[in-house]
Amino acid sequence: MKVLVTGIDGYSGWPLALHLLARGHEVVGVDNFVTRKRVREVGSWSATPILSFARRQAAVKELLGKELAFHRGDLGKYDFVRRVLEQEKPDAIVHLAEQRSAPYSMIDVHHAVATQVENLTGTLHLLYAMREACPDAHLVKMGTMGEYGTPDVDIPEGFFDIEFNGRKARLPFPRQAGSWYHWSKVFDSGDVMFASKIWNLKATDVMQGVIYGTRTPEITDDRLLTRFDFDETWGTALNRFIAQAVLGLPITPYGRGEQKRGFIALEDSMQSLRIAVEHPPDAGVYRVFNQFDAAYSVNELAELTARIATELGLHPTIEHPPNPRVEAEEHYYRPIHEHLVALGYERTRDLADVVREIFRDLTRYRRRLEARRHVVVPTVRWASGDSQPAMAARTPPPTPATAPDPPPVEPSSAPPEG
Amino acid sequence: MKVLVTGIDGYSGWPLALHLLARGHEVVGVDNFVTRKRVREVGSWSATPILSFARRQAAVKELLGKELAFHRGDLGKYDFVRRVLEQEKPDAIVHLAEQRSAPYSMIDVHHAVATQVENLTGTLHLLYAMREACPDAHLVKMGTMGEYGTPDVDIPEGFFDIEFNGRKARLPFPRQAGSWYHWSKVFDSGDVMFASKIWNLKATDVMQGVIYGTRTPEITDDRLLTRFDFDETWGTALNRFIAQAVLGLPITPYGRGEQKRGFIALEDSMQSLRIAVEHPPDAGVYRVFNQFDAAYSVNELAELTARIATELGLHPTIEHPPNPRVEAEEHYYRPIHEHLVALGYERTRDLADVVREIFRDLTRYRRRLEARRHVVVPTVRWASGDSQPAMAARTPPPTPATAPDPPPVEPSSAPPEG
Repeated sequence: MKVLVTGIDGYSGWPLALHLLARGHEVVGVDNFVTRKRVREVGSWSATPILSFARRQAAVKELLGKELAFHRGDLGKYDFVRRVLEQEKPDAIVHLAEQRSAPYSMIDVHHAVATQVENLTGTLHLLYAMREACPDAHLVKMGTMGEYGTPDVDIPEGFFDIEFNGRKARLPFPRQAGSWYHWSKVFDSGDVMFASKIWNLKATDVMQGVIYGTRTPEITDDRLLTRFDFDETWGTALNRFIAQAVLGLPITPYGRGEQKRGFIALEDSMQSLRIAVEHPPDAGVYRVFNQFDAAYSVNELAELTARIATELGLHPTIEHPPNPRVEAEEHYYRPIHEHLVALGYERTRDLADVVREIFRDLTRYRRRLEARRHVVVPTVRWASGDSQPAMAARTPPPTPATAPDPPPVEPSSAPPEG
Repeated sequence: MKVLVTGIDGYSGWPLALHLLARGHEVVGVDNFVTRKRVREVGSWSATPILSFARRQAAVKELLGKELAFHRGDLGKYDFVRRVLEQEKPDAIVHLAEQRSAPYSMIDVHHAVATQVENLTGTLHLLYAMREACPDAHLVKMGTMGEYGTPDVDIPEGFFDIEFNGRKARLPFPRQAGSWYHWSKVFDSGDVMFASKIWNLKATDVMQGVIYGTRTPEITDDRLLTRFDFDETWGTALNRFIAQAVLGLPITPYGRGEQKRGFIALEDSMQSLRIAVEHPPDAGVYRVFNQFDAAYSVNELAELTARIATELGLHPTIEHPPNPRVEAEEHYYRPIHEHLVALGYERTRDLADVVREIFRDLTRYRRRLEARRHVVVPTVRWASGDSQPAMAARTPPPTPATAPDPPPVEPSSAPPEG
């Protein structure tokens, strides 16, 4: 199949491209490199050294013997999106090109607006361009388990059957997101569901759990590494914990640390996305996959990190700074995940094994962590904004994804960065 | 109380200002006049002649002896929003300043994006500015009954209690909107609910039914008339039916005409909004009002229009063009509306009486309808886009609400328009 991957330069976009190529699919990428830029803006970089995109393409050619087509551009520009879809006519589009940081969206009003506007606009542009250029293609849209929040009932895969006032109906499961970013994904879900209905599009909305890991079987060479963020804006809690342990800093789960989320290994997330791509729904069908393996509390992750750090001869400590997020710290959490399993998904990776693997990689690149050790401490408060100045001071207003004059493509001689 | 009304120049904003002033409240308005401009862009105007805003203010002074403060500007500009809220420190904000046409949002990708981006951005800007400038103020946000769609169960006011897999929870009622515009209101609801939670704001989200009518008791003089749209983009189905009957054109309910919606008279909608303003919820409470009186099918409205037209000596006919919308044409529809009644709301107007009143006004301004008779025929198709060119041909790309150089304020000597 010919698969267009938007956000191909990102943490999951890059290994997905490698995985699809290895499985014999044709891959076309789109990216505007805004994540590289925004990570630099908060004073951080990828813990793993990543190549410029031109060098990534060359490495794919050399190591895998595959061509990786690429269009540099921005989903905020409709003419670009439509031109790419008309030229490529993909069978599937995996849409990963969105602002993906909840803390970034909470910095201030401008970051909130930029997050919601960019994510919505990109998705709407893709939907209209699909209708015009490739109405039979299948859209696999990256959402998040965070769309659901933490309701006091089981979380079904997108829809549920209820009885209310004596009548029964199948309804979308209500969303209760916990950041402007998570709400942007809820809004996308609404638009994708509606477009699928009125234009008969095939759509899979992926409620993605938190992804962990630095490796997939296709990453056989350091030139094929994907990015790994560990700063408080772009890194996940687990990423920060491991970076903190490697740096000899306290591991800092927020608040009491009982808040639970669904998780999945990078390799298994790639497996899931491939399964979605290879099993499109019928025309006009909008389906939802809850894409995670297991739920862990923040404390469980902190304790696992500390245990493995100790195995490795480190001397970890755990501290509990106040929770900057407004969220239930102790709650019921039982999301259902059956759709992918029904299509053949099998978990292949164990959390502890992957955490050991991450420790190995971060230890190899410890000097890159040392050079950015100031970024692993949380400073953004979501409710009152009291500690916002600290964050705002080092975070410029968001770069519009639709900037009219993007900088030139990074030369292939540029040093690895992220 | 001091009430800030955004979108004060609009169909409901204007009579709300008059109603609040008559009840002794202080009113401050905000508008960017984009609706006047966009109605001109589709080749139409208000059936009722409306004054420039400067002349409206003068008429309020002369006829009601009241000052009406006003800030011309755009909610798309955060500095403007924050400056107005800091200067005015309102007790309540009634937020009506949004792109309000479903057909407009369906014209093409640019109108879809403009609708969702403008509506989201304005609401986010207001929420952040409230947090900064007047965190104790009460936001009354205009949503729409259309957020809910037409589920096969009763529609509660925002939240419902369900049981799922053996556990019980109170959850937001799922939204299933039927246009990009309606989805933009769903998205606003998510953002308002979330802001209320994290910043302890008071918020009332008004699921507004379709409003009908040209008059309120405060409109005692033609200089105080509010706008009345009858074109296929900006006018409601009922507005178009009456305009068609007055012009001697066939009345055209779409499809089989059994699709049902909730309705409320202009005067009773103003009563409802005032009740919401005068009864704010507690801090941190996000509440939802289903603001309508009765549900009617499109056929019932067409038949009522024809019956009253006949009473008035006209010779109406009814035709059923294909439905351009993708919607269930026969469906269960029973929304609950108890919250406003509990606060003292009482219906004062009867649909047939108000329709007679509209006929009187449109007959008086028949020459304004005649001059724009080409705009009452539907041409936008929502699903396939086949008849889109006809619409697109006369509809320029949307005017960004954030245009850097708005035209100067209309001089008070300008002729009435709309």
